[in-house]
Amino acid sequence: MRDPGAAALFTDLYELTMAAAYHRNGWHGPATFDLLARELPPRRGYLVACGLDDALTYLEDLRFDDDALDYLRSLDLFDDDFLDLLGTLRFTGDVWAIPEGEVAFAGEPLLRVTAPIIEAQIAETYLLNCVGYQTLIATKAARIATACAGRSFVDFSSRRDHGIDAAMRAARAARIGGAAGTSLVLAGREHGLELSGTMAHSFVMRVGDEPAAFLAFARAFPDRAVLLIDTYDTEEGARVVAALADQLRAERIVPAAVRLDSGDLARLAPAVRQILDDAGLEGVKIFASGDLDEYRIDKLVRDAVPIDAFGVGTQLGTGGDAPHLGVVYKLAEDEHGPKWKRSPGKETVPGRKQVYRLTVDGRADHDVLALADEAAPEGGRALLDPVMVDGASRDTHPSSLDAARARCGAALRSLPARIRALDPSGDPYEVCRSPGIDALLGSLASAKAVTYR
Amino acid sequence: MRDPGAAALFTDLYELTMAAAYHRNGWHGPATFDLLARELPPRRGYLVACGLDDALTYLEDLRFDDDALDYLRSLDLFDDDFLDLLGTLRFTGDVWAIPEGEVAFAGEPLLRVTAPIIEAQIAETYLLNCVGYQTLIATKAARIATACAGRSFVDFSSRRDHGIDAAMRAARAARIGGAAGTSLVLAGREHGLELSGTMAHSFVMRVGDEPAAFLAFARAFPDRAVLLIDTYDTEEGARVVAALADQLRAERIVPAAVRLDSGDLARLAPAVRQILDDAGLEGVKIFASGDLDEYRIDKLVRDAVPIDAFGVGTQLGTGGDAPHLGVVYKLAEDEHGPKWKRSPGKETVPGRKQVYRLTVDGRADHDVLALADEAAPEGGRALLDPVMVDGASRDTHPSSLDAARARCGAALRSLPARIRALDPSGDPYEVCRSPGIDALLGSLASAKAVTYR
Repeated sequence: MRDPGAAALFTDLYELTMAAAYHRNGWHGPATFDLLARELPPRRGYLVACGLDDALTYLEDLRFDDDALDYLRSLDLFDDDFLDLLGTLRFTGDVWAIPEGEVAFAGEPLLRVTAPIIEAQIAETYLLNCVGYQTLIATKAARIATACAGRSFVDFSSRRDHGIDAAMRAARAARIGGAAGTSLVLAGREHGLELSGTMAHSFVMRVGDEPAAFLAFARAFPDRAVLLIDTYDTEEGARVVAALADQLRAERIVPAAVRLDSGDLARLAPAVRQILDDAGLEGVKIFASGDLDEYRIDKLVRDAVPIDAFGVGTQLGTGGDAPHLGVVYKLAEDEHGPKWKRSPGKETVPGRKQVYRLTVDGRADHDVLALADEAAPEGGRALLDPVMVDGASRDTHPSSLDAARARCGAALRSLPARIRALDPSGDPYEVCRSPGIDALLGSLASAKAVTYR
Repeated sequence: MRDPGAAALFTDLYELTMAAAYHRNGWHGPATFDLLARELPPRRGYLVACGLDDALTYLEDLRFDDDALDYLRSLDLFDDDFLDLLGTLRFTGDVWAIPEGEVAFAGEPLLRVTAPIIEAQIAETYLLNCVGYQTLIATKAARIATACAGRSFVDFSSRRDHGIDAAMRAARAARIGGAAGTSLVLAGREHGLELSGTMAHSFVMRVGDEPAAFLAFARAFPDRAVLLIDTYDTEEGARVVAALADQLRAERIVPAAVRLDSGDLARLAPAVRQILDDAGLEGVKIFASGDLDEYRIDKLVRDAVPIDAFGVGTQLGTGGDAPHLGVVYKLAEDEHGPKWKRSPGKETVPGRKQVYRLTVDGRADHDVLALADEAAPEGGRALLDPVMVDGASRDTHPSSLDAARARCGAALRSLPARIRALDPSGDPYEVCRSPGIDALLGSLASAKAVTYR
């Protein structure tokens, strides 16, 4: 969102009412919040962190302009003193984050925000929205990449995503998770992504018959046409392409691929391959789409169905079988020390934290959730990087998309197979608490026992 | 999206490659596309049409600016002649639509777009994205309103929605479907929605104990404070409020409500009600949130659990158990006549169509899908209105949010109970084909039999 005044109002009302109450009481001290997923969605063995780039842009731009202040004044809820404070508010805090593309787990802070409490509080809604969705989609894309096992896939989700920036962010997150490109032109421009496009059934229907439609399209794009062959009957469509082979060759046209968008791909793709090969069209690839997800792709790949690339739409951009990620933003520490919430099933881990990854023989073995000022576990690699200091983001921002993609690929390869699996089995990936965290929990538990029970 | 050049590029690459092929062959005749849901999502008995307002704004603004053209040129895919055409392209067509808030069913065109084929084609991606998501969420909201059975609910979804405009659109669609308001401040401003906000657990944790936190918050918002009482222990939290009752009364403060956000609401809410009533706080309402959806609310309401209002987040804004709607955009007619696609499981209904609703004793009985130029069935009410003519939208745009909400309420009340149910049973709502459509299908089937089999 490029309108900072509007972005500042992208916040839940309670962030502002709490901020007003803090201000009224002079509580302006620093606070640390953890943004994390409380648990992994069903069938997920890991998450792929994503959305940091947007998050940092938001924090850098955060300001309430006159229009925003006028609206807030109209609510008759806030006094002028608080509105004056909002008018001068900027984000001046520090952010540590797991970089985009890195693999992460439930309970690990994806972002750790330390700032005067009002600044940190107001950012909650936007940060959750932005990191939650993109992490969800990068994770889904990584699963699809895993299923593809080296074959290629493309983001086709734009028409089914939940809005315009969902589609823009889905294309980017999909790229980080492993997609070759996207069908969405605007995402190609904004994120420098490779564009992929074929033709629709309506084109065949408009032209009237497949031979004329295929010729018209191939002549318009002589070296990269993808012909959609299932408008009426897939094998018949393939035979139409085969029958055109000589004529296309004479015109020096080589279709790049045919696309199948319906029917039983496991049966149709081999038949189509045979028809094409028999016509000397071995170079024409087979592209498949139509309600695909990682499970269906995995089956096709395991069965060695001759499909070269996949277009994945709805299931990629909406998260498919896991359409939301339960991200939360929890107070971990304030100027009085570590904070701990104990609602049943919603317990938090107190303190300012770092996450370490421990590897054995080059493979991720377990993570350790530790206090930030605690000694690192031996051989542990710290996952949280300082990405913003005093409100200014560091060189790491904007993170390169290529770097994030490479990071994701390496992280996935380093995961134990049982964790990387589409349907993880056996023990979940272990995230241990450090001795420092355990000691802190123990001391808080005894203190609270006195205060409350 | 307010940047028209960017909005124009919010299109799948194949829309542009098809357009280029149409242009290259001089195929500029008019075409009619239907935007419809092929089937209802699981457990849905109906849809609530939504998204028309955005769709019309997009069509009115559609233009490729110089930046957009420069990017397209850089793809080395389109010739100058086509890019020149795009540079002058405006949407000049007609749109008929089912108004926002009206109930609709699978197979019924939510939008019917008639325009020169290139204009109609390029709009496909944006229109599907915009109408599909908003219809999904308005439908979900209507289900939640049905479950609430007169109690109130509020959109709390912003942090879990799929991006910024998903949250903005969710708040608006939720209002049409029956929500009282939203927590999202920006949506309050943009759509004139009532804002709702309470406090977060972090506020209690930051202040340190509940008595101090409740007092600080109540003093800041003397006549509308909602106190969150489950940070440590819900019943204990209620007792804290009860213990403060006299002091609050002395300060002329009346908390509006307490909020429960975790635990077994069916057990906790009556206990909290009792504690509050015993302290003379009968006027303090109980507000519940925490992973609610229409099924959980329905159970609570049927069990007469004393909860006055619900905050619904993730499950509302992401569609919850139905996170996507299979909307498609199908060629129905071109200058050569009606068009028909026959892929297995993806058949279309040819021709330019109107939808009629037939009522019996004031209750919706069945719909009829008919040809637009066919006589209306007796007593049938036409659902598709002309909302844009020659590229200019009619007075009905922007449709009033209040009107759409009222339309939705009336449409829901007129539905048979089995269709409005959260888990519809018995016969689905019937959508019949008119004699004209049947005759057309018959004639196309015999014609195609000659051509293809």
